[in-house]
Amino acid sequence: MRVKNPNVVILGAGYGGLMTTVKLQKSLGVNEANITLVNKNDYHYQTTWLHETAAGTIHHDQTRIPLKDVVNMSKVNFVQDTVVEIKPDEKKVKLENSELDYDILVVGLGFEPATFGIPGLEENAFMINDINSSRLIREHLEHNFAMYHNEEEKNPARLNIVVGGGGFTGIEFVGELANRIPELCEEYDIDKAQVRIINVEGAPTVLPGFDPELVEYAMNSLEARGVEFITGALLKEAKPESIVYEKDGKQVEIPTLTTVWAAGVRANSIVEKSGFENNRGKVEVRKDMRAPEYDDVFVIGDCALIWNGERPFPPTAQIAIQQSATVAHNVKALVQGHTDLESFEFNSLGTLASLGHNDAVGVIMNDRKIFGWKATFMKKMSDNRYLLKLGGVGLMLKKGKFNFFY
Amino acid sequence: MRVKNPNVVILGAGYGGLMTTVKLQKSLGVNEANITLVNKNDYHYQTTWLHETAAGTIHHDQTRIPLKDVVNMSKVNFVQDTVVEIKPDEKKVKLENSELDYDILVVGLGFEPATFGIPGLEENAFMINDINSSRLIREHLEHNFAMYHNEEEKNPARLNIVVGGGGFTGIEFVGELANRIPELCEEYDIDKAQVRIINVEGAPTVLPGFDPELVEYAMNSLEARGVEFITGALLKEAKPESIVYEKDGKQVEIPTLTTVWAAGVRANSIVEKSGFENNRGKVEVRKDMRAPEYDDVFVIGDCALIWNGERPFPPTAQIAIQQSATVAHNVKALVQGHTDLESFEFNSLGTLASLGHNDAVGVIMNDRKIFGWKATFMKKMSDNRYLLKLGGVGLMLKKGKFNFFY
Repeated sequence: MRVKNPNVVILGAGYGGLMTTVKLQKSLGVNEANITLVNKNDYHYQTTWLHETAAGTIHHDQTRIPLKDVVNMSKVNFVQDTVVEIKPDEKKVKLENSELDYDILVVGLGFEPATFGIPGLEENAFMINDINSSRLIREHLEHNFAMYHNEEEKNPARLNIVVGGGGFTGIEFVGELANRIPELCEEYDIDKAQVRIINVEGAPTVLPGFDPELVEYAMNSLEARGVEFITGALLKEAKPESIVYEKDGKQVEIPTLTTVWAAGVRANSIVEKSGFENNRGKVEVRKDMRAPEYDDVFVIGDCALIWNGERPFPPTAQIAIQQSATVAHNVKALVQGHTDLESFEFNSLGTLASLGHNDAVGVIMNDRKIFGWKATFMKKMSDNRYLLKLGGVGLMLKKGKFNFFY
Repeated sequence: MRVKNPNVVILGAGYGGLMTTVKLQKSLGVNEANITLVNKNDYHYQTTWLHETAAGTIHHDQTRIPLKDVVNMSKVNFVQDTVVEIKPDEKKVKLENSELDYDILVVGLGFEPATFGIPGLEENAFMINDINSSRLIREHLEHNFAMYHNEEEKNPARLNIVVGGGGFTGIEFVGELANRIPELCEEYDIDKAQVRIINVEGAPTVLPGFDPELVEYAMNSLEARGVEFITGALLKEAKPESIVYEKDGKQVEIPTLTTVWAAGVRANSIVEKSGFENNRGKVEVRKDMRAPEYDDVFVIGDCALIWNGERPFPPTAQIAIQQSATVAHNVKALVQGHTDLESFEFNSLGTLASLGHNDAVGVIMNDRKIFGWKATFMKKMSDNRYLLKLGGVGLMLKKGKFNFFY
């Protein structure tokens, strides 16, 4: 049954939710639907840039975008609040401060860290989750460097930085650290040789699943800049002043006040809590991006699970952004009473990992491998491309990355 | 008895010691004396600017000057080490890593904080002593602001800043904080109204001894920018997460993670430890700036005590700099075998207290009172004048303060 002027409610202004909102505010007339966007903050942030904020190599204000800069607030009703629960059978969303009714719902609530029950991780490790947690890491690092010379007995734990996880976030983060640490050393009169940046990864190699030649390149580039890799090692415990890992059956303890956990994310637990049919917390969406049991609920981004052969697609910005085209198209179709919904097809634009601001590795179209400044250039261009799509040339020029040449 | 090519050893590269060194390297020929300068760091810092570094309004590198930029290292033997003890009867100075013999000694070892036995102060309060402790305060403030939104339960103690002491350092520091806090609030998305800057002073008014009209002006200026004054209040205890003060017989506790103690300094305790005749740790020098019992030991700056009528001159940069002219003259006279030593005469150039970067109060020559931008201008010019005297126009342009108009 078609509802006149239906309530379209979008939860979350991450890559998927925000792009869906921006597309719908263009494609739907004001009398066709009431669009409501719910988000915790009044800004969007680029999750894929947070490791730079955490390392302190870019300011967090470059990483975030005020929603009013890209959302047309006369067309979209923005509610700044936190989602507590979705009640899909009642078509309601419970927020901390109010409750919303919807006719069509888009769930784009993103990820949360997964600590796999490793003792002490939640209490003692930092995570690169959002603006608040990322700038805290930057500050925490700087605080330890500032403390170093204020103690009679120098504490090496202040200068050991352990990053758990050698996947994309972990590797990109140590790459930024390799750029940042020499600056911090100069700032606080600390000998660079005393600082350790240690990446601990459970698999036999970092960037598991990536082309071995690219992995080799990445490790060489980072090791040349002082990063230590401990692969085939499992984090066993994070204590307040150290971490313990196990390798080859032996446990090793590293004194550190800074452990950054970058080895696991899961879908926002609200999805599971709200009773959606799920696979490890994610909704296995239909081809048209709707939840299997609800014709009026779309799920996008990190909360959605789509199979790519035998493995699920990884949760990336690229896939969320592409999904937004399908979701926006299908929401519009439902609003207009059509039943022919589009199917989502992933079109890989390649995968690039930065290794600090002046090096990167990756594969682009047709699985072509690229390294070094070419990859850096492509990576930054792809970051800029998103801004262009989201908010036009103005936004790209304001928040984009144009430091190609140093 | 005149020694040929005597060893002139200067301890400390603060205002007094460094200016003495710079004057002597000009006035003494290389064959007349061996000049040795001993300092803990390879840089000089401007103690009177440290409150700005602590607040984060100027970078610590503007506050410090590499010694090699002002000391002629081919004429002066520089020893980077920490003084452990002076043995005036043996004419020796014990350093952490070596021992020096001297024929003429200049003691310019500066101040250390005095906590008057207030419980918890040493462990839980920050002090504005040197570059390391000052940049730590800046970092500590920022760290608390960064933490604020990372905790479920917001902790107001992170945003309460207590400054103990309403003398020069305390007032100048809260003035800088009043400029800095709005920036930090913007940086970390914190409502300015939630931050408290609290100055606690034991006397009935801040800036005790200062002209009442100037005190009134200073308090109004600072209160208008959000500083709270609690006068007639004595700090009783500093705990890890609060301070306790007593006023009108009642004890009040303020939750805070940041207490900065700016209410007391004493002479470097090495003076007392080394057995010099002293008055509360300071050497009551003769008119020619020598210690009463030793003809070959000069004492300068915060370690020296000179009476101004019934009260001692306060330990200021101005007096240390002026003393350096007398000390350098008299060292040269001794080296050259003269016995007619000069007497020190203090010539007050006035007293100015900054209240942030765009306000100040003070008295200049002939006790003329000045306020506002005129006082700010005079204060910055006097800072620049010191740099000019110390290292010429180049140093003044490099490290001076020229932000007169904003």
